[in-house]
Amino acid sequence: GVDKKILVIPGDGIGQEVTAWGQKVLMTIAKNFKHTFTFEEGIMGHVAIEATGDPLPEETLLKARNSDAILFGAIGHAKYDNDPTLKVRPEQGLLKIRKELGLYANLRPIRLFDELLEASSIKPEILRGADILFFRELTGDVYFGEKKLTEDKNTASDLMIYHRYEIERIARKAYEAARTRRNKLCSVDKANVLESSRLWRAVVQEVAKEYPDVETEHMFIDNAAMQLIKDPKRFDVVLTGNLFGDILTDEASQIAGSMGMLASASVGDKVGFYEPIHGSAHDIAGKGLANPLASILSAALLLDISFGLKTESQRVIKAVDATLKQGFRTMDIANKHTVNSFIMGTDAMGAKVLENLS
Amino acid sequence: GVDKKILVIPGDGIGQEVTAWGQKVLMTIAKNFKHTFTFEEGIMGHVAIEATGDPLPEETLLKARNSDAILFGAIGHAKYDNDPTLKVRPEQGLLKIRKELGLYANLRPIRLFDELLEASSIKPEILRGADILFFRELTGDVYFGEKKLTEDKNTASDLMIYHRYEIERIARKAYEAARTRRNKLCSVDKANVLESSRLWRAVVQEVAKEYPDVETEHMFIDNAAMQLIKDPKRFDVVLTGNLFGDILTDEASQIAGSMGMLASASVGDKVGFYEPIHGSAHDIAGKGLANPLASILSAALLLDISFGLKTESQRVIKAVDATLKQGFRTMDIANKHTVNSFIMGTDAMGAKVLENLS
Ligand SMILES: CC(C)[C@H](C(=O)O)[C@@H](O)C(=O)O
Ligand SMILES: CC(C)[C@H](C(=O)O)[C@@H](O)C(=O)O
Repeated sequence: GVDKKILVIPGDGIGQEVTAWGQKVLMTIAKNFKHTFTFEEGIMGHVAIEATGDPLPEETLLKARNSDAILFGAIGHAKYDNDPTLKVRPEQGLLKIRKELGLYANLRPIRLFDELLEASSIKPEILRGADILFFRELTGDVYFGEKKLTEDKNTASDLMIYHRYEIERIARKAYEAARTRRNKLCSVDKANVLESSRLWRAVVQEVAKEYPDVETEHMFIDNAAMQLIKDPKRFDVVLTGNLFGDILTDEASQIAGSMGMLASASVGDKVGFYEPIHGSAHDIAGKGLANPLASILSAALLLDISFGLKTESQRVIKAVDATLKQGFRTMDIANKHTVNSFIMGTDAMGAKVLENLS
Repeated sequence: GVDKKILVIPGDGIGQEVTAWGQKVLMTIAKNFKHTFTFEEGIMGHVAIEATGDPLPEETLLKARNSDAILFGAIGHAKYDNDPTLKVRPEQGLLKIRKELGLYANLRPIRLFDELLEASSIKPEILRGADILFFRELTGDVYFGEKKLTEDKNTASDLMIYHRYEIERIARKAYEAARTRRNKLCSVDKANVLESSRLWRAVVQEVAKEYPDVETEHMFIDNAAMQLIKDPKRFDVVLTGNLFGDILTDEASQIAGSMGMLASASVGDKVGFYEPIHGSAHDIAGKGLANPLASILSAALLLDISFGLKTESQRVIKAVDATLKQGFRTMDIANKHTVNSFIMGTDAMGAKVLENLS
């Protein structure tokens, strides 16, 4: 078996509730497959501001650098959302750890478990067979460009900026992935208006030449936001910048039935970082209602991508599949048309997956 | 009757084909209601670059300033999309006319004609009753902030910037509109990451105080992109910036069945500017397949908003409705489940609407 150190950062809101189940799944896999996973815990976000004043305490960052992989929950709190003038904010922790660990490629696989066809607002015949892998650039764009607020507070700005090397490295990753899938890549930008998008497009066109076996398409973000729900099956790998990727992948959650199903992997320099796409969901936090499957599926991605444990990863996905086949549902994926289904909370759902793992 | 000057700018691609029908509808209304509409034509976009080297010739801008309203088609051409290094680009014409005429508020009403319930990729039960009015800010944001490309072509940037007065004036317009509707306003931003969004949110919070009778909600763009298709009925008026508005309204086209149905009005200082949301659609341009209804519905908005001719405007909408009820469809809104429907091209469809107007 392998010997690995995993840092768990539950973060804010439902992050606390769901990450516990991602971790339990990892512990069960370790036991069943005779691996040694050592867990540490770190704080980040609102909870870290409350405890230390800093959304990403130095100690958490140190632990992160010394781990083999990180399982993260969610970040954010209503207090900051309601007061845009606050200077110290939970999200700064997440942005900083992405930057510090060089996590430039955020992989967001969108796939529908057959059982959830009815949970989506989109028609089943449009969804069936959709299978998209997003590559969202994660350490550049308007997220990290210079921010300014004039002293009179009358003007505010953020710099949307991309460097050639940032586009090149994620484009290569996306093309490599396309080769292992259906050999299609769609790059999304707004090159008809934005200079940074024109650079994006030009660099992707260059990288594309190295992958003549992959069919490349360029699409404007507005059109992509439409095509994604009009005809999701036309997409294989989607490559895009930080901001457009943020928007498109949340939208794409409807293709997977619910946001509560979507896992993501952020990779780059060394340590991998795994997190659900959903946020801290203040409205249901602390109520035990959140869907733990996105955290559990994030654990599956961690096993596969950071540890190369493909069999173990598949075992987790199969356990999730089995749980859904047995009719177990959290609120977000419940559908009144599904007979013989049982609607349950976070812990009951997590426990079912653990049962199915054994 | 009224006496008005209308400038028609067909622009590029299918803009040429569909705008002809928007204009014919205006001519028919003038005749039926004894108004005098004088038409002029202007060039803009790729066609203007070909003819004069300038995407917005001075002459077109002059005609625009001297008109009472403008009916526009679409802009853009594959040549520029494929070559991001070209310096003179069709879209510059559209952006410049928006700026020069002070068209800061882009209204995009999203409503489903009952007959088109089946044309959407979204489930009918999710759609039925959805009725959203978008207010997209149109002369600020990353569209108009400073653009830079370094000499070595390794770095490119666009400044995402908002001034307080820009946010205030469109927020007021949106709140006023909410008062005439269901008294709900959702402001969309990315205040958890962007400084310009934090200013946006703070200013909207201030303006909200003047409209205590309107229920205000603030939503992050990623969440909004999801909620829009998950539960479109939760929205009444949506207020957002230039870039986020561009993305959300294209996405929202699926709520109306097709992009080919969506009209928009850009207003601000003086002259109003009316255009379909769809673009130039190179792939079908010149084939006579495009849906003319978005241009015709843009003409309806023009009659209502710029000329205050509400009866005439309603007459146009009813003619469109009647045409759909008779089963006439262009390709984009055709559905194989609709029996007794007739699939036709641009001109046949336009002609049916004219018949129904008389
Ligand atoms: C919480 C927020 C900063 C974050 C982002 O915008 O990147 C989240 O929406 C995500 O997608 O991971
Ligand atoms: C053609 C393009 C510049 C334009 C925009 O992005 O504003 C279009 O997409 C629109 O929505 O009117």
